[in-house]
Amino acid sequence: MGKADSESLPQVGQELATLARYIDHTLLKPEATPEQIAKLCAEAREYGFAAVCVNPCYVRQCAELLRGTSVQVSSTIGFPLGATLPEVKAYETELAIRDGATEVDMVINIGALKSGNDALVQRDIEAVVQVAHRHHVLTKVIIEAALLTDEEKVKACVLAKAAQADFVKTSTGFGPGGATLHDVELMRHTVGQDMGVKAAGGIRDYETVQKMIAAGATRIGTSSSIKIMEEAKAKVQPKP
Amino acid sequence: MGKADSESLPQVGQELATLARYIDHTLLKPEATPEQIAKLCAEAREYGFAAVCVNPCYVRQCAELLRGTSVQVSSTIGFPLGATLPEVKAYETELAIRDGATEVDMVINIGALKSGNDALVQRDIEAVVQVAHRHHVLTKVIIEAALLTDEEKVKACVLAKAAQADFVKTSTGFGPGGATLHDVELMRHTVGQDMGVKAAGGIRDYETVQKMIAAGATRIGTSSSIKIMEEAKAKVQPKP
Repeated sequence: MGKADSESLPQVGQELATLARYIDHTLLKPEATPEQIAKLCAEAREYGFAAVCVNPCYVRQCAELLRGTSVQVSSTIGFPLGATLPEVKAYETELAIRDGATEVDMVINIGALKSGNDALVQRDIEAVVQVAHRHHVLTKVIIEAALLTDEEKVKACVLAKAAQADFVKTSTGFGPGGATLHDVELMRHTVGQDMGVKAAGGIRDYETVQKMIAAGATRIGTSSSIKIMEEAKAKVQPKP
Repeated sequence: MGKADSESLPQVGQELATLARYIDHTLLKPEATPEQIAKLCAEAREYGFAAVCVNPCYVRQCAELLRGTSVQVSSTIGFPLGATLPEVKAYETELAIRDGATEVDMVINIGALKSGNDALVQRDIEAVVQVAHRHHVLTKVIIEAALLTDEEKVKACVLAKAAQADFVKTSTGFGPGGATLHDVELMRHTVGQDMGVKAAGGIRDYETVQKMIAAGATRIGTSSSIKIMEEAKAKVQPKP
């Protein structure tokens, strides 16, 4: 290894660590097993991802496996349709936090948004945010952008901000489309600099991650995290 | 109208009414609006379907619109991933019943089944069944057959029966596949004659409905109910 290489290594490590801190390492398919969740946690620990993002039934296992690390445990709430009651979303949040969740990814009531019932959309978000913030837990609000017009996307972001959520998030990964640069830009422009924007759904390579971050994303949800990190490593590492 | 025609009309009406009593008229897409739900209920009333099947946020509206009719209101529970906690499924059931649900369609914990945690699968179903039966509410247990091996399908049905559920159901309609004749036959064979079998997911014509019923289905979940009824009407009505 040449001198230039060894000098640039700490810099490379820093760049990769920074990238990892953007990533929610995600496993949400309904057939996921505890064995796969254990692997997810081991990877998150090894790479130093921001969080693991899992369904509620796996929060306790993740919290145990990640205790003492900087990796957060994020639980989905009302996922992925968002079509349950605010009280149920609040209770699901309460139990996820009891089980060790330090972040939640909730889905809005999309039908209520579409029919102009803004009050219900906001109340539904608030039901989750109030429980979460009482426990200093971070909240991400999934608007499922692929189902919305631009006007509806803006409205959803405004309501999430009014409800004092911490992040808006593009997609569940179960809808008809994932994150787009257009949506991330529109969401960032709508919420300003005070809130986070999470891009999720269909993000499978390092190049897309870079573009999403440039467009305003501060968190990336993906199940391709390891592939992305390896691609980034190959790119930023000095060639031998 | 000839004599033979007018004599056969009550018979035709009877056949169509019998068909309608098999059908859960279903609208579960997350972007469904109250206007679309109102139309669903009006149709269910007109055709005399067994039930409407909706997400929890629309149960109250359906119960109000269908009061005094024979159409049941079925609420999804833990839908469509099934990956939330038993306590949350139980609470969601409690509130759906408070809002007027007379039936529930719950999703099992698929990951628990896949990893051999049968005790959790059964406890999860029981959590819902116990709340439901306390209120004389009918329970359907969705096994999401397209994600399972035949062995797992059998096990899921055995656990649903052990938990004293009323029905097993093939699919959510959000998974990688819908109802198949093979699955309906296997499920019917497994649960015997004491339980119902609901075929759902991808059922879009009268011919398929007839085959599903012949295979052992006692309830059909579909969003194509009106098309199916019109096809049936055209087939059973005497030609002019």
